[in-house]
Amino acid sequence: MRLLPFVALLILFFPSQFKAAELSDASSECLDCHASIVPGMVAGWQSSRHARVSPLEALKKPELERRVSAKSVPSDLAQSVVGCAECHTLNPEKHSDTFEHNGYQVHIVVTPEDCAICHPVEEKQYGQNLMSHAYGNLLNNSLYQDLVQTINGVQFLDDGHISIKPASTETNGDSCLSCHGTKVEVKGFEVRETEIGEEMEFPVLSGWPNNGVGRINPDGSKGSCSSCHTWHRFSIEMARKPHTCSQCHKGLDVPIYKIYQVSKHGNIYSSIGKKWNFEEVPWTVGEDFTAPTCATCHVSLVVTPEGDVVAERTHQMNNRLPWRIFGLIYAHAHPKSPDTSVIKNKAGLPLPTDLSGEPASKYLIDNSEQQERRKTLQQVCLSCHTQQWVDGHWARFENTIKTTNEMTVTATELMLKAWETGAAKGLAQNDSIFNEAIEKKWMEQWLFYANSTRMSSAMLGTDHGVFDNGRWYMAKSIQEIYDWLRMILAVNSETSRDAK
Amino acid sequence: MRLLPFVALLILFFPSQFKAAELSDASSECLDCHASIVPGMVAGWQSSRHARVSPLEALKKPELERRVSAKSVPSDLAQSVVGCAECHTLNPEKHSDTFEHNGYQVHIVVTPEDCAICHPVEEKQYGQNLMSHAYGNLLNNSLYQDLVQTINGVQFLDDGHISIKPASTETNGDSCLSCHGTKVEVKGFEVRETEIGEEMEFPVLSGWPNNGVGRINPDGSKGSCSSCHTWHRFSIEMARKPHTCSQCHKGLDVPIYKIYQVSKHGNIYSSIGKKWNFEEVPWTVGEDFTAPTCATCHVSLVVTPEGDVVAERTHQMNNRLPWRIFGLIYAHAHPKSPDTSVIKNKAGLPLPTDLSGEPASKYLIDNSEQQERRKTLQQVCLSCHTQQWVDGHWARFENTIKTTNEMTVTATELMLKAWETGAAKGLAQNDSIFNEAIEKKWMEQWLFYANSTRMSSAMLGTDHGVFDNGRWYMAKSIQEIYDWLRMILAVNSETSRDAK
Amino acid sequence: MRLLPFVALLILFFPSQFKAAELSDASSECLDCHASIVPGMVAGWQSSRHARVSPLEALKKPELERRVSAKSVPSDLAQSVVGCAECHTLNPEKHSDTFEHNGYQVHIVVTPEDCAICHPVEEKQYGQNLMSHAYGNLLNNSLYQDLVQTINGVQFLDDGHISIKPASTETNGDSCLSCHGTKVEVKGFEVRETEIGEEMEFPVLSGWPNNGVGRINPDGSKGSCSSCHTWHRFSIEMARKPHTCSQCHKGLDVPIYKIYQVSKHGNIYSSIGKKWNFEEVPWTVGEDFTAPTCATCHVSLVVTPEGDVVAERTHQMNNRLPWRIFGLIYAHAHPKSPDTSVIKNKAGLPLPTDLSGEPASKYLIDNSEQQERRKTLQQVCLSCHTQQWVDGHWARFENTIKTTNEMTVTATELMLKAWETGAAKGLAQNDSIFNEAIEKKWMEQWLFYANSTRMSSAMLGTDHGVFDNGRWYMAKSIQEIYDWLRMILAVNSETSRDAK
Repeated sequence: MRLLPFVALLILFFPSQFKAAELSDASSECLDCHASIVPGMVAGWQSSRHARVSPLEALKKPELERRVSAKSVPSDLAQSVVGCAECHTLNPEKHSDTFEHNGYQVHIVVTPEDCAICHPVEEKQYGQNLMSHAYGNLLNNSLYQDLVQTINGVQFLDDGHISIKPASTETNGDSCLSCHGTKVEVKGFEVRETEIGEEMEFPVLSGWPNNGVGRINPDGSKGSCSSCHTWHRFSIEMARKPHTCSQCHKGLDVPIYKIYQVSKHGNIYSSIGKKWNFEEVPWTVGEDFTAPTCATCHVSLVVTPEGDVVAERTHQMNNRLPWRIFGLIYAHAHPKSPDTSVIKNKAGLPLPTDLSGEPASKYLIDNSEQQERRKTLQQVCLSCHTQQWVDGHWARFENTIKTTNEMTVTATELMLKAWETGAAKGLAQNDSIFNEAIEKKWMEQWLFYANSTRMSSAMLGTDHGVFDNGRWYMAKSIQEIYDWLRMILAVNSETSRDAK
Repeated sequence: MRLLPFVALLILFFPSQFKAAELSDASSECLDCHASIVPGMVAGWQSSRHARVSPLEALKKPELERRVSAKSVPSDLAQSVVGCAECHTLNPEKHSDTFEHNGYQVHIVVTPEDCAICHPVEEKQYGQNLMSHAYGNLLNNSLYQDLVQTINGVQFLDDGHISIKPASTETNGDSCLSCHGTKVEVKGFEVRETEIGEEMEFPVLSGWPNNGVGRINPDGSKGSCSSCHTWHRFSIEMARKPHTCSQCHKGLDVPIYKIYQVSKHGNIYSSIGKKWNFEEVPWTVGEDFTAPTCATCHVSLVVTPEGDVVAERTHQMNNRLPWRIFGLIYAHAHPKSPDTSVIKNKAGLPLPTDLSGEPASKYLIDNSEQQERRKTLQQVCLSCHTQQWVDGHWARFENTIKTTNEMTVTATELMLKAWETGAAKGLAQNDSIFNEAIEKKWMEQWLFYANSTRMSSAMLGTDHGVFDNGRWYMAKSIQEIYDWLRMILAVNSETSRDAK
Repeated sequence: MRLLPFVALLILFFPSQFKAAELSDASSECLDCHASIVPGMVAGWQSSRHARVSPLEALKKPELERRVSAKSVPSDLAQSVVGCAECHTLNPEKHSDTFEHNGYQVHIVVTPEDCAICHPVEEKQYGQNLMSHAYGNLLNNSLYQDLVQTINGVQFLDDGHISIKPASTETNGDSCLSCHGTKVEVKGFEVRETEIGEEMEFPVLSGWPNNGVGRINPDGSKGSCSSCHTWHRFSIEMARKPHTCSQCHKGLDVPIYKIYQVSKHGNIYSSIGKKWNFEEVPWTVGEDFTAPTCATCHVSLVVTPEGDVVAERTHQMNNRLPWRIFGLIYAHAHPKSPDTSVIKNKAGLPLPTDLSGEPASKYLIDNSEQQERRKTLQQVCLSCHTQQWVDGHWARFENTIKTTNEMTVTATELMLKAWETGAAKGLAQNDSIFNEAIEKKWMEQWLFYANSTRMSSAMLGTDHGVFDNGRWYMAKSIQEIYDWLRMILAVNSETSRDAK
């Protein structure tokens, strides 16, 4: 906007010879009403690349600069810019949320399968991303399902003891599924008086609104591109900035955003990142940016100023990740399949490791795949750092994986003792292992403190590995579990004595 | 600054025909000394709109663009820009902090009543805002006053037991009243050697400095416009950005800023907000901004690109709020009067609900007023979202109000049991209900975790409704209260056995 | 970049008459390979002032504008810009990490002693900064060394009791020493295949990478200028922005960054700081900025628009600090020597105060030095605030130091009782005073909550002095220690009864 006068000047001197792609008639019709009904939504789209460039033009770019991965785009879509109708009327037969709207077969929920018409490689890669399976990975795992209930369910006093009332769909949608994704289903159709004064019929959706990464869509597909490429701007700038990731990755279980913010990389981004170019494709290290954001290391196509590819673009993301440092309950080699609900450990529990820490190796990538991924990720580090620097950093990081797992062993041994001695009720009593105070303290050990310490170690987040939910809390938590166990046992013994 | 060369160019081509309003002689005299004594303070003002525009010019704007709400401004103030003297010499007779200074009757503390000379509508609305009553609402409520003491008072060991020494004025001013506002009073006058080498007399203020929203001023008025419109720039840009709200709304009791930061809205603001226009009046959705900040939903005059009013400007703010989700101890319909110290629940306690959750309805707005306010706020949502989207969001949000209140019921029932069994001393023993460890755990349940969960639900802050002081903590807290109660009872029984 | 067209225009009109300093041949040779091997590293340097200005040019500036403090620079370094070789080949004989590299004596770790060739005053001042001694201050203090072990060591169950396995070098480097600095030592030399396909020999460093403020370098010097002046840009902009400080000062023990963010000053920085000039030397209050960042108050050379010096530049920093509000275990007057490992309290412990709070005065600055420093710091405040404002603020702040210390007295008295009664094992039992649950609760009282409250008070961080790890937690923590002590004693008594 500040450069507008300049642009005007340029146009004066170089009379435009561009014949810009135009909006389709269908999209034009959409805008006739919606531009005034939902101006903010339309404005987002208007400032998007979609509003300016047709797929045909996009396909003409040299390969490294291309933002569409389709070899070709159906001719009825190729010529005009990507407007409302281009996305919201795609694949109408697959969409249970399709409805007749002013003569068009429109659907509400645009899905990865819709986007795949221009971006098929990204959609396919994303299907291999754990995130696209986030709904099922949570709800098709009996243990995690129980965990959800102990967090979201309403606790009430029942004859002096605490019981849990199952969580409602609304609560789950507001809580875990807000990030994991809801199941969006058509519950019927209803006629509604609209803003333009006419009655119209619309599908009634359950699980809506939602933007979760593993959303189950009305066309059966999984995920939502707009989780990161926020509608209707679908901006690569936004997806490349760390704030997008903060939507889901900031809490105590995955405090990545908070760690990034106070890391050297985050400091550089916050201090001088406003001078960087977040729009260019490919993304040139040293030219477009001088420190990584989340996307740089985990997603983006990064090249050197000489045009050499440092890292290929990936929407699978875990192909740059040797470890899953999010402990369940231990950090472990990455799962082979993005559908983690298939995993069983030796004891038959749907967990990637035993309670002792032994990995369920059959379901996890092996050493050589780990080494491959380690190298892929390190290539990004090596754009700015020497090999020795990188090796030293990784040695510390992988030592941290080991020691945090050891601390989880100790906490788990105390927990096992609690279950054995009746200080807590567990699987043997057919009770949740996540509902009692001491169990929650044990969980915080691996879900909050060990995770935070490992993530801090990965990203040089310093205090998140020490006082800010890091080693200090790991150390303290074990001591508190130890005391709590003794106290509960004393209370139980007192109670049983009094009962005599 | 970057555009300076441009501006220079423009001036060359279009010789200025503006006759800008000028500084009054009185303000000019102020600057003679103060520009060099407090250059930072003066620089703030110099970059303000006050330094450039006279009230007369401001009044000429079309109504929607107008930043002053007075119908007219006294002629002695109307012609010159708004400088030091224009504000600091207003209403001298009402100000107990007025003093003779170089021939002028100057006061230190500029108050909403002073600002009202140009901005009377805002001042009046703000008087209906809970915030303007923040001092009395805290200190004229015996329960809250006790709460303040148990937080700010100095605890000491007295014969093995803990007692509390009342908090000093300094401590309260540094703590709760830092946001709620202090009472600023003139304690006398003193002669001081000044920076320019002369002796001068100044009023001595207690409760100073302070910028709290409910500050009691030396002219008897309440509040401080500069809480949000930071002196001396009084910038609408700053008031519209979320950082201003963060000054008071970021802690565990009202983690709104932290929630906003990681919400989709906050992500958009952080990622691309630097391209927005925060100065325009009215504020046009889709043109000036594409995602809301705090002010958008709660305060600002928002219009569509076609000039239709989406929401009227309000400095009352709660007229866009059906619920008070800040639990005391339960979330409830908004109080009718901004002076909440008048509220009494059925048990006679100065609380908006009973301990069981039943609202003190007489003092709270009714359903139809709630529905009115709900609609007002939803109009803002509807600028970017569809009706179905908004309805779905609100259904979840109001379900969250319900379930968090249910969790507070459970925690409170445990607390009542603690008081009954002597595990804690409460009202029956004429003791504070906020001072003991188990009582503080109970308070965190509603003051921290239920609040955080509700605010997260309102703003799609995801993890603040789950792990980051959300549902995880609600669930854990009840279990810890349950165990703690059993442990304390066991200790008491052990102690009494030993006593026998 | 946005101004590039402008710059081009200017060059057209004013054909350059600058004869810019050039890169040395040696540095040119470095870039021949490294520009393509580590483009991100080189890009950082390319955008630095070092890449544009020679020491000779830098020395010609008027004194207040000068960024080098040397009276003169050796002639072989003075003419060319400051490139790779200029720093990485300095003082080769002092550097144990020097190695032969393409005919040059190169070292990896550039140290303050290297930087001192142009910046000797800053290096000398920094040597008086507590930070430069951060390694020894932690590791040469037996108590703190024990603290490190209880945080970083791996706890394991040993016959039902918890023991601690000493922390490895990697763990310490990833944890405390990440900020405090590691000891970087040459462990030998190794031949490695390089990115350009040739084998070369490099020194093998332990404790590497590290950027800690008290790093022990291979030339025996202490510290790392790049902790704040991030390599290889060494930007004054970055060092002046608060994000740099956040790298180490954000955790629960020193939550300064988090407090700043929500303070009025931080609000102003976040809202309008992007318009400020962070590059100018000297830094002019009211012109270059209108609210302070960390550097403004603690480090920078600040002047008024009239050119009067408000505060001299200092890299010692504590000469603007009367108090050390980081409690160990009480807040106290600042230590005289930056080497705090020499301090002993009356009981002979290496602490700046007794457990009762009495300061080890011999090692701490006296009242008059405190008054001197108070005045120096207040000069910065007075650029924007009146004397009465500043006095009122400091009265509250110093009251907060007093009351938080009083709360620490109470917590410590409970702790002493725990040690006396055997509820915890302490020095008398030759046990760590930091390892048990109740001891950790006691530590949080002074290390987290009292610190947070004081830092909040210093910087008007409001909620960090109340609910966000402030007074609320101080009040609660004492109550929890009180109950925990009773519970542990009851468990012990129960256990001993059962043993009979």
